[in-house]
Amino acid sequence: MSGNTFGVLYCVTSFGESHGPAYGGVVDGCPPGLELANNDIQRELDRRKPGSSRHVTQRRESDAVEILSGVFEGKTTGTAIGFLVRNEDARSKDYSAIAEKFRPGHADYTYWQKYGIRDARGGGRASARETVVRVAAGAIAKKWLKEKYGTQVRGYLAELGSKKLGFGSWEEVDRNVFFSSNAKVVPELEKLMDALREAGDSCGARVNVVASGVPVGWGEPVYGRLDADIASAMMSINAVKGVEIGAGFAAIRQKGSEHGDEMVPGPGFASNHNGGVLGGISSGQDVTVSIALKPTSSIRVPRRTIDSRGQATTISTTGRHDPCVGIRATPIAEAMLACVLMDHALRHRAQCADVTAPLAPNR
Amino acid sequence: MSGNTFGVLYCVTSFGESHGPAYGGVVDGCPPGLELANNDIQRELDRRKPGSSRHVTQRRESDAVEILSGVFEGKTTGTAIGFLVRNEDARSKDYSAIAEKFRPGHADYTYWQKYGIRDARGGGRASARETVVRVAAGAIAKKWLKEKYGTQVRGYLAELGSKKLGFGSWEEVDRNVFFSSNAKVVPELEKLMDALREAGDSCGARVNVVASGVPVGWGEPVYGRLDADIASAMMSINAVKGVEIGAGFAAIRQKGSEHGDEMVPGPGFASNHNGGVLGGISSGQDVTVSIALKPTSSIRVPRRTIDSRGQATTISTTGRHDPCVGIRATPIAEAMLACVLMDHALRHRAQCADVTAPLAPNR
Amino acid sequence: MSGNTFGVLYCVTSFGESHGPAYGGVVDGCPPGLELANNDIQRELDRRKPGSSRHVTQRRESDAVEILSGVFEGKTTGTAIGFLVRNEDARSKDYSAIAEKFRPGHADYTYWQKYGIRDARGGGRASARETVVRVAAGAIAKKWLKEKYGTQVRGYLAELGSKKLGFGSWEEVDRNVFFSSNAKVVPELEKLMDALREAGDSCGARVNVVASGVPVGWGEPVYGRLDADIASAMMSINAVKGVEIGAGFAAIRQKGSEHGDEMVPGPGFASNHNGGVLGGISSGQDVTVSIALKPTSSIRVPRRTIDSRGQATTISTTGRHDPCVGIRATPIAEAMLACVLMDHALRHRAQCADVTAPLAPNR
Amino acid sequence: MSGNTFGVLYCVTSFGESHGPAYGGVVDGCPPGLELANNDIQRELDRRKPGSSRHVTQRRESDAVEILSGVFEGKTTGTAIGFLVRNEDARSKDYSAIAEKFRPGHADYTYWQKYGIRDARGGGRASARETVVRVAAGAIAKKWLKEKYGTQVRGYLAELGSKKLGFGSWEEVDRNVFFSSNAKVVPELEKLMDALREAGDSCGARVNVVASGVPVGWGEPVYGRLDADIASAMMSINAVKGVEIGAGFAAIRQKGSEHGDEMVPGPGFASNHNGGVLGGISSGQDVTVSIALKPTSSIRVPRRTIDSRGQATTISTTGRHDPCVGIRATPIAEAMLACVLMDHALRHRAQCADVTAPLAPNR
Repeated sequence: MSGNTFGVLYCVTSFGESHGPAYGGVVDGCPPGLELANNDIQRELDRRKPGSSRHVTQRRESDAVEILSGVFEGKTTGTAIGFLVRNEDARSKDYSAIAEKFRPGHADYTYWQKYGIRDARGGGRASARETVVRVAAGAIAKKWLKEKYGTQVRGYLAELGSKKLGFGSWEEVDRNVFFSSNAKVVPELEKLMDALREAGDSCGARVNVVASGVPVGWGEPVYGRLDADIASAMMSINAVKGVEIGAGFAAIRQKGSEHGDEMVPGPGFASNHNGGVLGGISSGQDVTVSIALKPTSSIRVPRRTIDSRGQATTISTTGRHDPCVGIRATPIAEAMLACVLMDHALRHRAQCADVTAPLAPNR
Repeated sequence: MSGNTFGVLYCVTSFGESHGPAYGGVVDGCPPGLELANNDIQRELDRRKPGSSRHVTQRRESDAVEILSGVFEGKTTGTAIGFLVRNEDARSKDYSAIAEKFRPGHADYTYWQKYGIRDARGGGRASARETVVRVAAGAIAKKWLKEKYGTQVRGYLAELGSKKLGFGSWEEVDRNVFFSSNAKVVPELEKLMDALREAGDSCGARVNVVASGVPVGWGEPVYGRLDADIASAMMSINAVKGVEIGAGFAAIRQKGSEHGDEMVPGPGFASNHNGGVLGGISSGQDVTVSIALKPTSSIRVPRRTIDSRGQATTISTTGRHDPCVGIRATPIAEAMLACVLMDHALRHRAQCADVTAPLAPNR
Repeated sequence: MSGNTFGVLYCVTSFGESHGPAYGGVVDGCPPGLELANNDIQRELDRRKPGSSRHVTQRRESDAVEILSGVFEGKTTGTAIGFLVRNEDARSKDYSAIAEKFRPGHADYTYWQKYGIRDARGGGRASARETVVRVAAGAIAKKWLKEKYGTQVRGYLAELGSKKLGFGSWEEVDRNVFFSSNAKVVPELEKLMDALREAGDSCGARVNVVASGVPVGWGEPVYGRLDADIASAMMSINAVKGVEIGAGFAAIRQKGSEHGDEMVPGPGFASNHNGGVLGGISSGQDVTVSIALKPTSSIRVPRRTIDSRGQATTISTTGRHDPCVGIRATPIAEAMLACVLMDHALRHRAQCADVTAPLAPNR
Repeated sequence: MSGNTFGVLYCVTSFGESHGPAYGGVVDGCPPGLELANNDIQRELDRRKPGSSRHVTQRRESDAVEILSGVFEGKTTGTAIGFLVRNEDARSKDYSAIAEKFRPGHADYTYWQKYGIRDARGGGRASARETVVRVAAGAIAKKWLKEKYGTQVRGYLAELGSKKLGFGSWEEVDRNVFFSSNAKVVPELEKLMDALREAGDSCGARVNVVASGVPVGWGEPVYGRLDADIASAMMSINAVKGVEIGAGFAAIRQKGSEHGDEMVPGPGFASNHNGGVLGGISSGQDVTVSIALKPTSSIRVPRRTIDSRGQATTISTTGRHDPCVGIRATPIAEAMLACVLMDHALRHRAQCADVTAPLAPNR
């Protein structure tokens, strides 16, 4: 299985480049009978759409999705769902200056060395614009998980550069362009981003994602663990450099008597340091994931680099870029978590459909 | 592909339980002609062996490996390499007390709910003893990577509970039971562990792994990224709750002008915040990975839990357990990184064998 | 990996329905640097196009392909190649009569029972029109195999109903609408088909495919054999009911002293009963494959069947159908063989790139 | 996924060589709660065991299986089932004569050219003795299919060389060493085999396999078809050169009005030319498969060949070989069919667990 497909049973294949004619994908393995319209996907795509505020790339894309197969009279048929999102605002001239140089921190150099050829326009295949495919696939997964298990996947921006945003409420998340759950910090974030843009620099971010209503039992020991697949899915998002489940790196400094979540009749847990996964299998608690996104590589600040002949030079990137890719990452991270959960929901019922969870319904 | 196999081309399949007759594995896809003897694997297994000091589990296992196939007259033949490690010191009576209760933080509960049945002896399939298979598979990968590309995969304990160990030298790592690269901190670590054991508690740890001599070009966009596969491999190790590549979570607070590694003729890089992976493809720099391991769940400190009928009770685990699973995790993390790198080395030459890296040999 | 993707390294994903907006596919894993234009694919699509003679379906489709990604300045970049073929002549009214009945020999019934829902228009996903995706993917594989190894994949119609066509010459194959290698039989085939069409009936066919210039060494024991993957690829073509490699079923009546191909210095073989595959690995001889295609299920002759309420009824299908699907199957079978060979070429060099075949270059 | 693993959810991994210490395998994905003892597997292994009559190889192997994991207190736990079959009677001296020459029709040459190294003892990995792993994995699949769906997988020898055996009764199959369903032909078969052995030659065979009680709905369009996976599984068996489903190659000469199985209320079918698979999905009828096995390559009749330096020579193989590998192939073919069916049973319920087949229970 090559690199542009993921998932065992809920299987997503992706194609497209930043300045090519279109992005598209194939979702294979979706159960039949799910009501699905373009708009179910469009709603999620609109959440990650560029140009929605001055704090993100000014590229103007309607990101209109066209479902090409797998849906008949408003319902999924169980066959492959193909979909397409045309690129509309690809200004390749913006990138002519960088075609011969490698942006520090960018995939320019590695693609070129690996393949001996690269589509430099807008980052080509390495562009974060590829995440439209993930969000589309995730929209279907979210809908199915919600309707079938009541599982809800939600995320929020937790840190922007050095600023910790705190958690406010889920309702707030979609009311501001930062996906902040805390309304109070928004003015400060705007100031922070304005300053950054003025400086021609970028910053990193942390996004937290939470899946609630996950039944106990999803995940496969020992390599196909739920948390291993989540880690892979998250790390595959552009710019992600770290993934935590539950307590994450804080678990290093915890004692066993503190970290191990005590159990109470219900069955339930007195805490959730494990982030809803024990031994690679969902525990029935919220699955909590946190990711680190590095600062955007395409910045105006001049930096030392080399050109395609290997000579020293400097580069300053002036195209339309997100000064913080983390700002638009929330719907993407949600999508990836939803896809992994749906994959494991299907895998679980394949093997364990006959099992009645001894202490609680595993649905 | 079910959960007990990983890798696309360097493919590892694992079986075995803590108190069953044996662990074993199958390594498929290894190139032919590699010199391989039992001892090449045994050397690595001995590094993770239990009972090597008072700070780890006192279970006595020789962990002797038997290669069953795939090697002829001392060389790999290109066919599947089967191997076996018999369990010798399985005292199931130790576990009778916990068969009816769920250890907080352990997979006891999730396995039972998922499968409706569980082998409670020693944690069954959830036991970290499964890592013998990983270490064996990793030993082969390490040998091949070293001989073919000069790639070296090494790790060390970076943090033990609240104690940061610092980096001393690679030579020191195998001279102490903690895999500390810094000899000076060892007495303090011993004291720390003695106190922990006395308290009947456990602690977490951080392990860092570094692969040097990795050629540019390994990795596949966009889901089969090198870093995504590393994240999955690491998160699949028992007790791991977080994975970082390069700057990891510190990247959140970095500016783009700080994080993006400037390039210099060579070609080379002025820094390595990206941890040797750009756009999911190795950059030719050291691949640097850091993982967080949670504290052991099996502790003597009494904790609230429920029994298999769902009733409230308490549990205190007195079997032979590592008070910090992180101590023995270094060879395991090295093994997983080696397996992922070898898989991608093969995947890369499958697709790009004809490519000459424009600026440097990608071997 | 779900059902609409095949191949390990040369990986093809397909979507689309007969009367939906479009068919499309994603080819992943193609090496970079291959010159590729729409026309390289179009040429092959035109060979299987409907409406090319009175002996095949009269549906009018230009089958124009649009490459959407993975190609930059006329060369493959190593990233996923997405492509699209719009449906233009979908007359769904033709099928309204059969929406409530199951055609004997057709997938109507099994899709409906499996998924609980079916797109009955033109056979939906079960339509042989899906083979446009295969032919497109095969066109890329053919081109790469030819340029890289000199491997050529060619096929011809060997039997039409009870008529054996014999082998004439490869040059003749594309000069007649039957893909007959023998010009002499064409008038007879036309008469046969005219009679069949008049009778409102259909017939089966045999197609032979031959790959020449296949190096020794492609294929993986023991389940991933070259012949096993060929068998799967061929049997996955609509209407195929049998697959033979080399002597095929005739091997039953052969003695070992007859079947086993003697070897001669060169190295070479005195015969090719094995069809170019020994132990699942290519021998360097021509790979010879033969497939049986059943007669079309959609016929005018009235037949007994049941309706969607399970009641007895009769059905007579009057839409536009191929009276013999085998006629257009030659380019499809070639495409599938090419895809499998390319997949194994990549798999072979992944594992064995360092091996020099002791007796002959395995390229 | 490398070549020694097959199946998506019921996943079998195999290792071992003819004269190595052992064969073994890992069955992953088996549902929990299945009662399983060594003897459930042993019974099937005994059916294919060598040395059971003078008509098969005289190698003496007890083929005793040891289950190493995945079973606890007599039931499967849902974790990987590892098992081992030690080789006991490997007389490598028998093969010293052929180590330097290639047997016509054998994998000797292709392994050597592919890998640059080969274990010539007893055919190494290419030996049909590998089928112990398949039969063991199939035994588990058979048991599960039987208990869960009432599905029964049975086979018989249908042709031996030029002799057609006809179908007698299922009861007879295990009463003679030929797996003939027809008792009357047994004396003739014995005579035929005696003559063949005396002549130092070998012959081919046809084996038919039938799965009854298969629910409607197993299989995935369009590449992961049930029949495509069956074709692959069958063609991967040593010596198989052809696979038919249902009417197979006879479908070429059938008219559509003859081949297409008419449907009757029930729902049912008036005939079964399709062999229980329509559009790649099981129809609820018997799944009927027929395979062609070529004559054994290791024969006493002298044949022309080349040696490892490429020089012309002759070879006469005198080791212990089956004069007709087809004789012992029946349990192997049954096993492969059972594995594929179980894989698809799991895949089907993963995607379609919520579907109620409109016209009949699909269980």
